[in-house]
Amino acid sequence: MEEASPEVQARVRTSFEHQGLMEHLGARLTRISPGCVHIELPRRPEVTQQHGYFHAGATSAIADSAGGYAGLTLFAPDNSVLTVEFKINLLAPAEGDYLEAVGKVLKSGRTLTVCQLEVFAVEGDRRMSVAVGQQTLMQIAARPEH
Amino acid sequence: MEEASPEVQARVRTSFEHQGLMEHLGARLTRISPGCVHIELPRRPEVTQQHGYFHAGATSAIADSAGGYAGLTLFAPDNSVLTVEFKINLLAPAEGDYLEAVGKVLKSGRTLTVCQLEVFAVEGDRRMSVAVGQQTLMQIAARPEH
Amino acid sequence: MEEASPEVQARVRTSFEHQGLMEHLGARLTRISPGCVHIELPRRPEVTQQHGYFHAGATSAIADSAGGYAGLTLFAPDNSVLTVEFKINLLAPAEGDYLEAVGKVLKSGRTLTVCQLEVFAVEGDRRMSVAVGQQTLMQIAARPEH
Amino acid sequence: MEEASPEVQARVRTSFEHQGLMEHLGARLTRISPGCVHIELPRRPEVTQQHGYFHAGATSAIADSAGGYAGLTLFAPDNSVLTVEFKINLLAPAEGDYLEAVGKVLKSGRTLTVCQLEVFAVEGDRRMSVAVGQQTLMQIAARPEH
Repeated sequence: MEEASPEVQARVRTSFEHQGLMEHLGARLTRISPGCVHIELPRRPEVTQQHGYFHAGATSAIADSAGGYAGLTLFAPDNSVLTVEFKINLLAPAEGDYLEAVGKVLKSGRTLTVCQLEVFAVEGDRRMSVAVGQQTLMQIAARPEH
Repeated sequence: MEEASPEVQARVRTSFEHQGLMEHLGARLTRISPGCVHIELPRRPEVTQQHGYFHAGATSAIADSAGGYAGLTLFAPDNSVLTVEFKINLLAPAEGDYLEAVGKVLKSGRTLTVCQLEVFAVEGDRRMSVAVGQQTLMQIAARPEH
Repeated sequence: MEEASPEVQARVRTSFEHQGLMEHLGARLTRISPGCVHIELPRRPEVTQQHGYFHAGATSAIADSAGGYAGLTLFAPDNSVLTVEFKINLLAPAEGDYLEAVGKVLKSGRTLTVCQLEVFAVEGDRRMSVAVGQQTLMQIAARPEH
Repeated sequence: MEEASPEVQARVRTSFEHQGLMEHLGARLTRISPGCVHIELPRRPEVTQQHGYFHAGATSAIADSAGGYAGLTLFAPDNSVLTVEFKINLLAPAEGDYLEAVGKVLKSGRTLTVCQLEVFAVEGDRRMSVAVGQQTLMQIAARPEH
């Protein structure tokens, strides 16, 4: 999969860096392709639930962001993205060195975009699907900066 | 709405305190009734997205936890709870002093429980619904501690 | 709950009558209020699954239509409605004399509308919730008739 | 993709033939592979909505059935299948000679199974994705026949 243009990559990275939550969780952008974005989240006690697995809320948060940015790579340069809704199935306890969320655009319309979400738990060589989801995004005219 | 028994409250609070993510986000349990749990999340830069609103991932995380604990209040004392899946619609930009997530059991079965999720943004006197969702939980035999 | 205006009722009824599927299933509109529509489906072998219960597909079809028409009651007179997505939990086997689907608008926006869906199975005096759902609709400019 | 064993095919076909709704809609099973089932629905006025497209309820009904039977192909011979919930995004108006629903098992657990659903509209040589969904199934002990 080819990488997105430098301009698109910069647009996505700038937005990501302004998301307090992603930084607070320790998430990082690891791939920005046209219509497809990867986000990784290393294991830390701060992102777990009561049994030491990754918390479903952390899994969902990076899945939602990966999908949102996948949509953004295909939007007009000045537009921004809003999550309308998403649905996620947690397939297995999420344990490993890190999670990798993959957001992929399935259908890009003028107003609405639909993405497939998948989250993998990676431990050494093993990469296991731990969540799958589906998301609806809305393309909105860019918010004025001031 | 009456409060849950001291035993059930203790069970929910103990589990909550073991969720690294909830503490890391700054979320707190504010109500534990039979079949209904409230979780609040004060605004901090650490839980926002690129425009300064609460991040959909933070909104979803507390909604998922509120639903999960609402289910847990009705489970057998030794059992624990797993989120099978949830779906959430973001209705409006989430801004305010804090978010309040309300998880409510709609149907409690032997294996599966279905919850309604709602998240409100509260600013002073104003309380506005910013997200609604639906969640499926699974009751599982308690994990052995050692 | 008050009834919708005669004009709105006529708009909904005309659309409903043009839905081949609703007539084919034997469904009927039983209430049209602003932001809330009821559809009933009597039991017949033609709408069942392999164990004689109402088929989840029939349950979903009337739930989707009830929500869509609930949205339509609040739209501009010339606009029409499109289902963007819906999610439904089947809570219990659906058996009874008839099903009653209730679609209710939770949030009506300029472009998107979010509805709550609920389906009841009615047998004599008993009215039991058998499905709950959530739906996103889109308001679109009316399709030209020619 | 290989076909399912004659025994599994017979089990799926027998169940399908007992679904009044599938016959009433005019749907037919066109492929039964292990973990993957196809159902086709030819265009007829009886399965349309007010603009002449396939009704979202018909699209959902065959998607739900395709997923349910995909799950059933992997279950123990005496067990049956229940839809816990599903979510579907309608991507485009569904028009064509027929619809083809494809249900595919993503994760098969002891109690729960998660399927991916996709529906295509086929017109001559053109095959277009018109809906994608995600479904949770439950494997239950077979219902006694008497």
